[in-house]
Amino acid sequence: MVEWEGKEDLAFVLSVDRKFSFEPRTRPKPATSRDVVVRVIATGICGSDIHYWRHGAIGDFKLTQPIVLGHESAGVVEECGEDVTSLKPGDRVALEPGVPCRRCRQCRGGKYNLCADMRFAATPPYNGTLTTHYSLPDDFCYKLPKEMSFEEGALVEPLSVAVHSTQLAGIRPGNTILVLGAGPVGLLCCAVARAFGASVVVCTDIVQSRLDFAQSYAATHVHRMSGQPQEDKDALLQTLPVETTGFDAVIDATGVGSCIMCGIHALGRGGTFVQVGPGRPIIDFPVAQLCSKEGVYKGSFRYGAGDYELGVELVQSGKVNVRDLITHRFDFEEAQAAFESSSQQNGMKTIIYGYQVKQSWLAAKL
Amino acid sequence: MVEWEGKEDLAFVLSVDRKFSFEPRTRPKPATSRDVVVRVIATGICGSDIHYWRHGAIGDFKLTQPIVLGHESAGVVEECGEDVTSLKPGDRVALEPGVPCRRCRQCRGGKYNLCADMRFAATPPYNGTLTTHYSLPDDFCYKLPKEMSFEEGALVEPLSVAVHSTQLAGIRPGNTILVLGAGPVGLLCCAVARAFGASVVVCTDIVQSRLDFAQSYAATHVHRMSGQPQEDKDALLQTLPVETTGFDAVIDATGVGSCIMCGIHALGRGGTFVQVGPGRPIIDFPVAQLCSKEGVYKGSFRYGAGDYELGVELVQSGKVNVRDLITHRFDFEEAQAAFESSSQQNGMKTIIYGYQVKQSWLAAKL
Amino acid sequence: MVEWEGKEDLAFVLSVDRKFSFEPRTRPKPATSRDVVVRVIATGICGSDIHYWRHGAIGDFKLTQPIVLGHESAGVVEECGEDVTSLKPGDRVALEPGVPCRRCRQCRGGKYNLCADMRFAATPPYNGTLTTHYSLPDDFCYKLPKEMSFEEGALVEPLSVAVHSTQLAGIRPGNTILVLGAGPVGLLCCAVARAFGASVVVCTDIVQSRLDFAQSYAATHVHRMSGQPQEDKDALLQTLPVETTGFDAVIDATGVGSCIMCGIHALGRGGTFVQVGPGRPIIDFPVAQLCSKEGVYKGSFRYGAGDYELGVELVQSGKVNVRDLITHRFDFEEAQAAFESSSQQNGMKTIIYGYQVKQSWLAAKL
Amino acid sequence: MVEWEGKEDLAFVLSVDRKFSFEPRTRPKPATSRDVVVRVIATGICGSDIHYWRHGAIGDFKLTQPIVLGHESAGVVEECGEDVTSLKPGDRVALEPGVPCRRCRQCRGGKYNLCADMRFAATPPYNGTLTTHYSLPDDFCYKLPKEMSFEEGALVEPLSVAVHSTQLAGIRPGNTILVLGAGPVGLLCCAVARAFGASVVVCTDIVQSRLDFAQSYAATHVHRMSGQPQEDKDALLQTLPVETTGFDAVIDATGVGSCIMCGIHALGRGGTFVQVGPGRPIIDFPVAQLCSKEGVYKGSFRYGAGDYELGVELVQSGKVNVRDLITHRFDFEEAQAAFESSSQQNGMKTIIYGYQVKQSWLAAKL
Repeated sequence: MVEWEGKEDLAFVLSVDRKFSFEPRTRPKPATSRDVVVRVIATGICGSDIHYWRHGAIGDFKLTQPIVLGHESAGVVEECGEDVTSLKPGDRVALEPGVPCRRCRQCRGGKYNLCADMRFAATPPYNGTLTTHYSLPDDFCYKLPKEMSFEEGALVEPLSVAVHSTQLAGIRPGNTILVLGAGPVGLLCCAVARAFGASVVVCTDIVQSRLDFAQSYAATHVHRMSGQPQEDKDALLQTLPVETTGFDAVIDATGVGSCIMCGIHALGRGGTFVQVGPGRPIIDFPVAQLCSKEGVYKGSFRYGAGDYELGVELVQSGKVNVRDLITHRFDFEEAQAAFESSSQQNGMKTIIYGYQVKQSWLAAKL
Repeated sequence: MVEWEGKEDLAFVLSVDRKFSFEPRTRPKPATSRDVVVRVIATGICGSDIHYWRHGAIGDFKLTQPIVLGHESAGVVEECGEDVTSLKPGDRVALEPGVPCRRCRQCRGGKYNLCADMRFAATPPYNGTLTTHYSLPDDFCYKLPKEMSFEEGALVEPLSVAVHSTQLAGIRPGNTILVLGAGPVGLLCCAVARAFGASVVVCTDIVQSRLDFAQSYAATHVHRMSGQPQEDKDALLQTLPVETTGFDAVIDATGVGSCIMCGIHALGRGGTFVQVGPGRPIIDFPVAQLCSKEGVYKGSFRYGAGDYELGVELVQSGKVNVRDLITHRFDFEEAQAAFESSSQQNGMKTIIYGYQVKQSWLAAKL
Repeated sequence: MVEWEGKEDLAFVLSVDRKFSFEPRTRPKPATSRDVVVRVIATGICGSDIHYWRHGAIGDFKLTQPIVLGHESAGVVEECGEDVTSLKPGDRVALEPGVPCRRCRQCRGGKYNLCADMRFAATPPYNGTLTTHYSLPDDFCYKLPKEMSFEEGALVEPLSVAVHSTQLAGIRPGNTILVLGAGPVGLLCCAVARAFGASVVVCTDIVQSRLDFAQSYAATHVHRMSGQPQEDKDALLQTLPVETTGFDAVIDATGVGSCIMCGIHALGRGGTFVQVGPGRPIIDFPVAQLCSKEGVYKGSFRYGAGDYELGVELVQSGKVNVRDLITHRFDFEEAQAAFESSSQQNGMKTIIYGYQVKQSWLAAKL
Repeated sequence: MVEWEGKEDLAFVLSVDRKFSFEPRTRPKPATSRDVVVRVIATGICGSDIHYWRHGAIGDFKLTQPIVLGHESAGVVEECGEDVTSLKPGDRVALEPGVPCRRCRQCRGGKYNLCADMRFAATPPYNGTLTTHYSLPDDFCYKLPKEMSFEEGALVEPLSVAVHSTQLAGIRPGNTILVLGAGPVGLLCCAVARAFGASVVVCTDIVQSRLDFAQSYAATHVHRMSGQPQEDKDALLQTLPVETTGFDAVIDATGVGSCIMCGIHALGRGGTFVQVGPGRPIIDFPVAQLCSKEGVYKGSFRYGAGDYELGVELVQSGKVNVRDLITHRFDFEEAQAAFESSSQQNGMKTIIYGYQVKQSWLAAKL
């Protein structure tokens, strides 16, 4: 394998007409005195990466110029701005890929994920991390404990989505939770809910193999959705103690209208329903159900203060296992094959290694 | 006028085939040693009373036996159970019309409005207050300050609905609020939001005369809904300071899908939307909007701990004026005419006086 | 052993001059149609029981008539009031020993532990559970899962104290916690904090053997207090990640002024300190420390809505082990010896079995 | 009066041996592209300014080099960094005098007032605003509505202290509040509590003239503290409705141990006590009282996200009157006289105008 030093960076670029290519790039310098440049070692593929490739847009975010995809990454610090004190070259870090303005009402109020000026990797017009080096502020790098691999570091990103959603759901020890959807985010929500002490965690899907994995992974119960709302609701409620009126919390990770409908019906009085990302922009919604049980229906958007820290802690402590979600691994040069494989949905998480990643770096722990 | 003492009680009864009649009833005794019997002096007509009359059901609550309607009432304590210490005959009180079980998880946890065993006046199968006397627990009676009339006491009920919703909206001083619908509950939400310190309170409707009243009553701005979503949203946002992303809170008191749709679009990042009662059971809901701004959509159901107390305080202190909402008044014998008048929606609130109400009681203050 | 049926009840009574005796009592009937009579099988001795025996008073609660002590109990339902549907004779239950009025502002608002009319077992003038039978409302009985013994059921009481305190501390996964005091309540707070996901749980004491037990039981770190404030604080902070400013939460289960002082200094910016019961009525308090870090210092009083349920769940699920805290067991007839043993503090928890407890009941699981 | 353009800046400097002098300074340039330079027009004197002058230190903050005092200021924007878009020269602004790091756990979590790297004007080693020009980030400048004078803008600073404390107290409409101390901060807490809808606001002091002012300004009741704890407590509780157990919230703006002691006793069950700055570092604290009523005792430190905005809104809307607190005004050249006057405590707030302030600027509104 060719050594990377002294060479140009290489980026994996998606063109406006949705074709991938590899392009040389100038190695970035720290953008400010508090930024660091990180060599990217491992990157997970997210559903949104696939979506930009397949459709050229997500909602209002449209591909109008070539873009580098990828935002679930971990790597090694290579260069630090002059005022960086918390990191040094050689530090292994997970990268939080969205940097807010730090000045607006949302940022100052502790909800920086809602910053209107967020610069988020691989969301147009900002480039992502499927490139040799990536520059970002020091406080958006999280040191990986020595027990954690780069792959695990990369998956702190989707884990933070689950952490954020589960925190919004207000899950406390002893609670009963329904998680709709057994894809990566749904599974991670199950795992985080368990780590938060939930006593019943029911996971649903329409694919039996996913449910089998969910059962072995983090769910206390699974249910294959029949598409018959009443039947599904009845089956779900049978997992609960008799005296309860429904689930303390429901998290939907499908975006599918019929799932959401079923979930609102299965929600207990005064319960909280968290929507982790939408599917279609508009759905049929059972408003009378929500009102009569005084339910709370919350949108969840990315992740915010403390979520990445907690993600690292949950992996380090063994409370959440992200490694078992990785089903496919590709070298950087095979990135297009990785996207093709991932888009066929025959697995959970796909990891792409960094360009010319030194074998010695990976030797210790993947 | 005939004196009532020694006579039978008279109830205004709706039959299963939705015909009204007056029926004699035995005067109730305190149901327990902590109950009191109240002579009903004034009762407001609620939209739900009209709905049972017109349709025989609200959602799952169906008329299967004759029922006494009415649940917005105030009166005079006439008899106290032996263990009642906080009240005495002659006390003027507002009646909170729903009595929970006090034992379930919801009751013990401070959300008694969500009690599954709630006995709510004029919700089948429980009789309401359009009768001479009504018995209820002492702690569901609220002494009226001498400044407050019986009519005002009756309207503490819809005011409590507004208090509960506005509390759920988390409104704090300086907040900007959108209230959809200028009926009694919407107007009271405007008034409560002002009392909570909201700096901008925009009220919408499709009837100009209601908006004119809203403007004079409690709204800082009004907007007549055009039915053009983009146009309506733009007009609503123009009432806000430039640096904001939308309203801090939205309260919908219409139940109309297009209003809710517009309200979610006008909600600011991280804002809270409260649904005060549904219209149709299922609506089109802009889930992607809610997610991208991480909005919270809450159902509101009746009222709970502290809401009635605060309602009395808001009227007593002059922060909320409920008297101006009263447009029609009827004697008990004219109750059917009151319902007919009220159902034609040519006014705000209609009050029905109690059966053979002593003139001397009303002399001081209506 | 003599069979108890047909005989009078026997109570273990403390006289006003603080002498114990056994006295016959009439077997209670259900006090209301929703009450049940429970045969008491196991009762833990609490520090407050010892304190009434040794001092005749706790704060404003003074012994002015003979009293039956004991409030940490589990037993078997023997008789149900006519309206009881959730329990039946033979059900094994833990007893929540304080019954509130259900009507005051605190009760209706979800904080029934603050009810001014609370009737709490073994708090003057109310008798406790060291007697053959005890009558209480059905909703203050918690069915024991078959995995749980009566002894474990009895210890749900002190566990609920720990649950309540830990909930007040707002502990979330990944948090760092300091628990001052390695007595039963402190140890249970450590265990609950772990169950809530705390990543660092430091326990302190001045007795090394207690610390050894704490280390093996639930603490991640222990520290023997030196009495040198600066030295103690420095040692405590060394258990934390470098970037933190102190503990996310501190729980004091000692009541000792110097411990509280040290705890406030070790608290992180914006952290929460929970005081689980006081020692002396007035202490020296570092108010400037609290202000400069904007700390929150909360008193914790008994337990409230949901705490007992969660206590049962934590034991059933194996997240908290209460059995290992039991170091001494006595028959009912040996109750005075149990008090003498317990007051010498040579163990953690002492259990007194019920009067003439049937061996068959205990055979399955102690 | 001499025109200031083209001249050096002048600063009012306190030396380490606590002597004042005027010193020429170079006019600052915007420190970053998002900073602005403000001509200081009006500055209020704070107790902390007086304290540094009299004692050379506050807690751990010690005068080890000359310092410019002053941090309650408003002025006119004179120069904007190249990336500033929200402000332009000529804008009238209130200055929030503490700028946090924006990167630490506290800042990102929405509690920037707890930032360990806060640069706070007139807190050693950072210079304050008693100088001709002051440079700060654009988002720490708040545009003054045209209705607000510079003097009022300067007093948004102490008002924000009151806003922050009152928000921590969780005051909601209908609540009953006790404010200990009728100095500027106590009075502003009274006014903010009223704006938040408190129905009873009792203010205490030991100086009758202050109480007279408090009564006319914002308190619903006043009480002159006798120093007899029981007597004071009884008198305070007499202002409350009979069914309450004490005040919903207490705010101490004295720092005096006996006041805090009395306040904890007057606090209702489950109530919140906010300490707005300490007096002595350690006080006698009634811990048993706090525990038995499960009270919450919170330190309050400066102000944070949203507090300044709300301060401006409260003044603009007329809900809080800060102008009436101003009793003394001095020109910049008389700054030492202003300090001498203010330290003799013969008034509420003292304002020092900016150096060679243009009369035309002040003509419109002081």
